[in-house]
Amino acid sequence: MSQKIVSLTVRDVRFPTSVEQHGSDAMHTDPDYSAAYVLIDTDSGLKGFGLTFTLGKGTEIVVCAVEALAPLVVGKSLQEIVSDFRGFYRLLTSDGQIRWLGPEKGVIHLATAAVLNAVWDLWARAEGKPLWKLLVDMDPKQIVSCIDFRYITDVLTEEEAHDILVKAQEGKQQREDEMLKGGYPAYTTSCAWLGYSDQQLQQLCTDALQSGWTKFKVKVGADLEDDKRRCCLIRQMIGPSNTLMIDANQRWDVAEAISWVSSLAEFNPLWIEEPTSPDDILGHAAISKALAPLGIGVATGEQCHNRVMFKQFLQASALQFVQIDSCRLGSVNENLAVMLMAQKFQVPVCPHAGGVGLCELVQHLILFDYICLSANLHNRMCEYVDHLHEHFTSPVVIQDAHYMPPKARWNRKESNEEEVQSFGYKRFAFLKCCGLKVLSVWA
Amino acid sequence: MSQKIVSLTVRDVRFPTSVEQHGSDAMHTDPDYSAAYVLIDTDSGLKGFGLTFTLGKGTEIVVCAVEALAPLVVGKSLQEIVSDFRGFYRLLTSDGQIRWLGPEKGVIHLATAAVLNAVWDLWARAEGKPLWKLLVDMDPKQIVSCIDFRYITDVLTEEEAHDILVKAQEGKQQREDEMLKGGYPAYTTSCAWLGYSDQQLQQLCTDALQSGWTKFKVKVGADLEDDKRRCCLIRQMIGPSNTLMIDANQRWDVAEAISWVSSLAEFNPLWIEEPTSPDDILGHAAISKALAPLGIGVATGEQCHNRVMFKQFLQASALQFVQIDSCRLGSVNENLAVMLMAQKFQVPVCPHAGGVGLCELVQHLILFDYICLSANLHNRMCEYVDHLHEHFTSPVVIQDAHYMPPKARWNRKESNEEEVQSFGYKRFAFLKCCGLKVLSVWA
Repeated sequence: MSQKIVSLTVRDVRFPTSVEQHGSDAMHTDPDYSAAYVLIDTDSGLKGFGLTFTLGKGTEIVVCAVEALAPLVVGKSLQEIVSDFRGFYRLLTSDGQIRWLGPEKGVIHLATAAVLNAVWDLWARAEGKPLWKLLVDMDPKQIVSCIDFRYITDVLTEEEAHDILVKAQEGKQQREDEMLKGGYPAYTTSCAWLGYSDQQLQQLCTDALQSGWTKFKVKVGADLEDDKRRCCLIRQMIGPSNTLMIDANQRWDVAEAISWVSSLAEFNPLWIEEPTSPDDILGHAAISKALAPLGIGVATGEQCHNRVMFKQFLQASALQFVQIDSCRLGSVNENLAVMLMAQKFQVPVCPHAGGVGLCELVQHLILFDYICLSANLHNRMCEYVDHLHEHFTSPVVIQDAHYMPPKARWNRKESNEEEVQSFGYKRFAFLKCCGLKVLSVWA
Repeated sequence: MSQKIVSLTVRDVRFPTSVEQHGSDAMHTDPDYSAAYVLIDTDSGLKGFGLTFTLGKGTEIVVCAVEALAPLVVGKSLQEIVSDFRGFYRLLTSDGQIRWLGPEKGVIHLATAAVLNAVWDLWARAEGKPLWKLLVDMDPKQIVSCIDFRYITDVLTEEEAHDILVKAQEGKQQREDEMLKGGYPAYTTSCAWLGYSDQQLQQLCTDALQSGWTKFKVKVGADLEDDKRRCCLIRQMIGPSNTLMIDANQRWDVAEAISWVSSLAEFNPLWIEEPTSPDDILGHAAISKALAPLGIGVATGEQCHNRVMFKQFLQASALQFVQIDSCRLGSVNENLAVMLMAQKFQVPVCPHAGGVGLCELVQHLILFDYICLSANLHNRMCEYVDHLHEHFTSPVVIQDAHYMPPKARWNRKESNEEEVQSFGYKRFAFLKCCGLKVLSVWA
């Protein structure tokens, strides 16, 4: 069967998370978790689902961008795409007229991510595997054939990437079995959004400890005294042996970041996340250097817009934790490039997740990272946030603070045309979005 | 009069420049010069006009983004905006939901530029001055009050910026008189687009020499032998004392850039423009270092997306020519920040222009740069491209290869409601766009 793509549809889906201050931080005080949600139809009846995450207002702009990319996708067959996936990636990112709007950044790259995420989903469905398993089963040559090495060859060539993948083949099956049994370690961000009261923090932290969580992230950056009180409270509750991370969501300039975080050093955070502008590689390098003596690393990436930026963050020793995002980078293709560079520099990948659908997406990437690249769990963990999973037909499964690998569900029957299919990469249910909890759906 | 903004309208305007290969380069082979064009109406009847430049496809995405920003503008008075212009800038760039789509990059920042360009136009009209004169007449305190210093204070604080401006007051009147008399030096890109035949090159170069041009830019990067032939041809025609620049429009990776440009060193180019990804600060630094012994500088900026990136290009000695853009950065506000940082690092500003309206816009900024900042013309020049000026009611005036400062035309009568007003910052004629030459107007 050719799996020719006959149409691409995109929807604007929004949830009113701001009402209860879920997701609130020092720069995003009232996010309404949203998505530009893409559906690809093929002539065989098989579908692919993809999304990119947004914060509410402006989702319609990303929808408009997806529509601008659609003509590059519709009419192609899956086979045609995956037999030259690098070429297809470049077709989407390098159109001579559209690339002016990026290139490979902002709205147009978010749209590229949503479209490519749907193509990867289609591929996984066609193979009858969850995405992580599709990736794990690919040979190194096929993996590198999906990557556009343009602008990163000074740090990673195709040959070098291939060698890294070949070298990591050893013990692969064992690691896959290990993941299927125990899952990938996670940390929680759900206890300490900036807009939560101390009472809420305490209650959520108590619950999380009881559920087996050992790693906790706290939002900081709006008010130093508040931050001290909140960090003190959380550290007291979790004790000295559990892990605390802090996240400023780009609130500071370089000097302010150094002094502010130094004031919080007594609470022994593993990392400070997004201390300043996501574009400021040299700024992050200065902060990293200043905080190293305090034992605090710098983490960033959820708004790092492409592989060229990650390349430089690694070259400049500007981060100690690489936070890839499944929807900000150009889907699996560009994430593969970044994970390979991180492996070369021996910097741990700790994905950004949360929002809507990010956990469901990024778990596949981090499973690939462990099984086929890093073979290492030291200082490695994937973010988890417990909102909005109920809107997915197959939400992530967390067990004892670990992401349990999604399994293919070969025989699941699809209910009807309008309901989304139920296994594979992304499984967002359209119909549920039309219910009470959805702020708006512009279809 | 309050000048309260009562509406903001945006249009998608496109010209079929690709038909004759105007604007063609190694990465943008078929640009249709276009604009998202903004019109602001006030309760006094005064209007403001602004635009951001695009290459055709995708202009509708920028239009959609402008519409998303409109609610932040409509209802405000000009007085309210300019009395806290830094605050207004941050309102547009830091909305807690919309900033996720950037921040300050890509589509959303292009839209910000178009909107703010219209606000600056409105201000200039309200003052009855062309924009450059409005800027030149502002005192240093008022200038710095327009700038958002967030994320650049490690390189430039408000106090430092103020001091630089105060120091440059000396000789200001003399430089203004000098500009009014002789204009600002320009170079031409119109002779050597990549899609032009050798015969066209020769004819255009002959014409340009006769019109007094002494500085010429050649597009390179698609084929080395072609580049050698074209550079040789142009260098022979212009002779050894005139200036040649080359422009690769991001075609290469770092190592390839160094070897390719070294092969063209015999033609003695002043700079290589955009050798690689516009995001690759460290790559540009490596290229700069390698080419310095050959006497070739690196120029970049037309796709450098914000002040944080320019800050790092300057910190890393990654460019020797700062190419600001009037529509890629956040309008006059962010360009002021970049020009001030360039002045601090003593790196010449040589603006990007061309496209549609970019010459009309950026001439105001470079006049300010000379009169109020640099006081220096060594290795400084503004790009000029001679397409599409006929669509402006008051096109740029070039005299002996110099930009002649636009003058206020106090008494010019406006023809009717639908025709755009005719003095001030930007003067794009809507009605002309509906004629034969326009590819499409989506109103």
